Amino acid sequence: MSEYHAPLRDMQFVLNELEHLNQVSTLPGCEEIGADLAAAILDEADKYASGVLSPLNISGDLQGARWSDGAVSTPTGWKHAYAQFVASGWNALSCTPEFGGQGLPRLISALVEEMWNGANVAFGLCPMLTRGAIEAIELRGSDYLKETYLPKMVSGEWTGSMNLTEPQAGSDLAAVRSRAEPQGDGSYRVYGQKIFITYGEHDLTDNIVHLVLARVPGAPDGVKGISLFVVPKFLVNPDGCLGARNDVRCVSIEHKLGIHASPTAVLAFGDKEGAHGWLVGEENRGLEYMFIMMNAARFSVGIEGIGIAERAYQRALAYARDRVQGSELGAKSRNKVAIIRHPDVRRMLLSMKSRTEAMRALACAVATAMDIAQRHTDDSQRQHSQAFVDLMIPVVKGWSTESAIDIASLGVQIHGGMGFIEETGAAQHLRDARITTIYEGTTGIQAADLIGRKIARDQGQAARHVMAQMRTVEDSLLRRNDASLAPIARALGQGIKALEQAISYIVAHYDTQVHQVSAGSVPFLELFGLVAGGWQLARAALVAQQQLGAGNTEVAFYQAKLQTARFYAEHLLVRAEGLAQTLTQGGGAVLAMDDEHF
Amino acid sequence: MSEYHAPLRDMQFVLNELEHLNQVSTLPGCEEIGADLAAAILDEADKYASGVLSPLNISGDLQGARWSDGAVSTPTGWKHAYAQFVASGWNALSCTPEFGGQGLPRLISALVEEMWNGANVAFGLCPMLTRGAIEAIELRGSDYLKETYLPKMVSGEWTGSMNLTEPQAGSDLAAVRSRAEPQGDGSYRVYGQKIFITYGEHDLTDNIVHLVLARVPGAPDGVKGISLFVVPKFLVNPDGCLGARNDVRCVSIEHKLGIHASPTAVLAFGDKEGAHGWLVGEENRGLEYMFIMMNAARFSVGIEGIGIAERAYQRALAYARDRVQGSELGAKSRNKVAIIRHPDVRRMLLSMKSRTEAMRALACAVATAMDIAQRHTDDSQRQHSQAFVDLMIPVVKGWSTESAIDIASLGVQIHGGMGFIEETGAAQHLRDARITTIYEGTTGIQAADLIGRKIARDQGQAARHVMAQMRTVEDSLLRRNDASLAPIARALGQGIKALEQAISYIVAHYDTQVHQVSAGSVPFLELFGLVAGGWQLARAALVAQQQLGAGNTEVAFYQAKLQTARFYAEHLLVRAEGLAQTLTQGGGAVLAMDDEHF
Repeated sequence: MSEYHAPLRDMQFVLNELEHLNQVSTLPGCEEIGADLAAAILDEADKYASGVLSPLNISGDLQGARWSDGAVSTPTGWKHAYAQFVASGWNALSCTPEFGGQGLPRLISALVEEMWNGANVAFGLCPMLTRGAIEAIELRGSDYLKETYLPKMVSGEWTGSMNLTEPQAGSDLAAVRSRAEPQGDGSYRVYGQKIFITYGEHDLTDNIVHLVLARVPGAPDGVKGISLFVVPKFLVNPDGCLGARNDVRCVSIEHKLGIHASPTAVLAFGDKEGAHGWLVGEENRGLEYMFIMMNAARFSVGIEGIGIAERAYQRALAYARDRVQGSELGAKSRNKVAIIRHPDVRRMLLSMKSRTEAMRALACAVATAMDIAQRHTDDSQRQHSQAFVDLMIPVVKGWSTESAIDIASLGVQIHGGMGFIEETGAAQHLRDARITTIYEGTTGIQAADLIGRKIARDQGQAARHVMAQMRTVEDSLLRRNDASLAPIARALGQGIKALEQAISYIVAHYDTQVHQVSAGSVPFLELFGLVAGGWQLARAALVAQQQLGAGNTEVAFYQAKLQTARFYAEHLLVRAEGLAQTLTQGGGAVLAMDDEHF
Repeated sequence: MSEYHAPLRDMQFVLNELEHLNQVSTLPGCEEIGADLAAAILDEADKYASGVLSPLNISGDLQGARWSDGAVSTPTGWKHAYAQFVASGWNALSCTPEFGGQGLPRLISALVEEMWNGANVAFGLCPMLTRGAIEAIELRGSDYLKETYLPKMVSGEWTGSMNLTEPQAGSDLAAVRSRAEPQGDGSYRVYGQKIFITYGEHDLTDNIVHLVLARVPGAPDGVKGISLFVVPKFLVNPDGCLGARNDVRCVSIEHKLGIHASPTAVLAFGDKEGAHGWLVGEENRGLEYMFIMMNAARFSVGIEGIGIAERAYQRALAYARDRVQGSELGAKSRNKVAIIRHPDVRRMLLSMKSRTEAMRALACAVATAMDIAQRHTDDSQRQHSQAFVDLMIPVVKGWSTESAIDIASLGVQIHGGMGFIEETGAAQHLRDARITTIYEGTTGIQAADLIGRKIARDQGQAARHVMAQMRTVEDSLLRRNDASLAPIARALGQGIKALEQAISYIVAHYDTQVHQVSAGSVPFLELFGLVAGGWQLARAALVAQQQLGAGNTEVAFYQAKLQTARFYAEHLLVRAEGLAQTLTQGGGAVLAMDDEHF
């Protein structure tokens, strides 16, 4: 059973040759982040991911998290692995130095995060949630909250959890009912039940810092009456030591399709005297703060998709090279060959590989923009980058996760009958991937965000700016006048045209025909991801063609880049026109049927 | 938790209004099979499927089949359910009357089979395998084998199993190593290990009749040296009573992603004195016989896909009607609505519904042709129908199962977070569906069969005949000159055109560029299924438009048919052109990369 290994060469390519790192290195606070330091960090992260996390992935799935009498035990080896994670400083990687973080740019931490998720997504979720909680406290918490919680959360000694969902309130947070009563001393007592709380209870750390959405007395109905609270598992004494157990209890954990080792808790707040909670920011602005975190978390879930896709590809590739079955198609010899020789197996592998590389490059483009938006000295640069980030987050989240499911499923298929046997490990990737299109906002929610807030609201301005960048790449492809680039240019051009039509349609009709447009929102998100991925692979092809022309001796790598981009163009980008048609013509068919006639 | 209910209205529609039953009723031996008898059978089958099999589906998945010391126990309730199955005569439904069967046409039994698989696919596999074994013995077995085994197998008192796969021989049966040594008395001793044997061991019946591929001494290498043997679990005495235990042992069963209640056995033949076996037909012709069974089994696996898709749809629809979340898009009221009101949920439901209905109609068209091919008095009618059956079996198998995975996955998505929780039941359908594209020949194997044996070999003749039928339907749509049919006609026309281009490409290039063509074989299979499904839904739309025009009062049903066909046209058929492009242009990209550069 092969272990995960980080795709370091491709990561280096994206960082250095797709010219992301040089944009980040010039930003304030990032001056020391050159190619060598980045490479050293990625190497170290790979050692931890492949050496510590990957070997726990299958055993963690088999054993799962276990609940007993309110306590949750993680699988064998997880406490030790998490202790190493904290000791090595991985949790602090992208946190601000003010509370002990290393302040590395998102571009680097995104790639490191991909490794955690590639090696062991059920483990990777824990620091992902902690990071979200850190961000909320950092951005809107009082000095008391920051000083009390952030140092231990940044180091990873305490973890965080995000408590949004209630049985009646999944995607619709307006329906949140948990309540918080002020105690007159600045603190609150929190009451209510939360479900689907990832790492809401576990044995990895001494304390867990829950961030909880609840309503204060007299709060307005709906989303404008939700406030955000810090509710620690153990209260923290003024000296920083842990005090009494708070009134929050893990009632049970879920029996899930995948991510078995990640405990998904039902938490009861305030069954006895009320759970002590502290307001983050102002009352009734909880949703706004949550959205800040959620955008970061949505990007991270996109990264989960990429990590799982990469892992599924590596496993399938190893199997396809190893498994000898059938003879070469059309050959006279009856000699058996490895199944990678069979055209359909190659097709599946390339479909996995090309999309994974496209998703990685796109996510890194967005991470780069996050760094610019956060750190650039120029206002307009920051705003411009933030607009790109806001536009692309639902695309990265929705498209990378939907693709990850399909890629993991292809991984099963390449294994044939062995793929269906759990011991092989291929099926786990499909089971694990299946949650990523659901949590932190389903694909439908991402698509609604994309067409409404991100495209219709600014009349497609941010989107058209991206289209212009895509057109520039198409022009470069055409100008090179090279046979290896021609099919890529053609398919990218068709994809861009389809995407432009779709965007114009949304801008023209969203206000007056919101149902009609929404009916095609997910096909549109797929279209956007598809074309954006093609744009990134086309950029990669330009670099590769140039390197080969300049006599770079790493011929295999650059040829593979060209071939991968061409495959993507001819097997995936060709879907663009159909998706655009579905959006622009298919809305009526979705709406026509009466509910009771389904 | 809702139970499965057979989609009786749609089944009636396919039987009677798509005019399949009237083709079958005129065949010899089917004269009594009118609409009333068919309806009565389907009603009874629904009672058993919904009342007996469906309640065992989730508990069977949770409990799973269990192995202990060579014996396998099925989950609680399965023995009783199987006894009822036998007592009610369900096993004998489509078997020949000569050995106790009821001789019903395949058209009827296909729909009944869909019900077993919709209610409980892990259960449905058992009679499916028995039927395959019956067919092999019926077609090529000696009188001794027929008389000894068929009466009990037809009744269902004994089950059958198919033993093809060995660890080194999955898709590639040429690699089979099991051997059979003649004993001089007409019997053989069989030695070897077989894996992935569905219901290879269980406690439902007193005996199991294994059909086993093995090589006799001196047999040629490869597929031309494989023979087929009957190897019963217990020997049968001349008086028909069970005798000694044969030397076949269940070494273990697999831990699988899905179909947990269906035991997947590793069987060791001949570890001691050799397993007693009896040759079926002639030596070295086993593969040929297996292919007869396999074609039937492939069709049945396609039906499994349809059954699971229907079940996943029913569950998702019930949830979408029940789950209240969010308010109506664009409405001023904040009143919460059932999620079926949300356009993207409707889109997913329609994607599930439209494909399931298309797959059912297509499978019934093929089942009808099977009946004609078997029973028609006219030679050329039989041959013509058989050519259609041969062409369409890989399409029904490959397309219905690939679609079933996607449909089951959409079912999970509609449930949101609840879909990922196993208790909900939605995830089980995805896990169960995931095997259907693998066993009885992977999708890649189906696609290779389709482009090679079924299209290139006859220069596309059978395929072009189907295209002509599709064109007739397109013409009818256009001639009606009705706005509700126009988008369906347009999309079908585009789909047919794309399919025609693809077929011409295959015919022109298969012999000289087999790798290139094979690289697009699975996209081509998807294209064929897509367009064939569109053809069937277009036929349904013609009927519906006519009924509505004639004032039929079942307005809701016929309007839904029209709307479903339109959705399929605008959301699914629009993919046809991209798939054709992938086949005709994308082969080079699949082949270009060196194996080691992946």
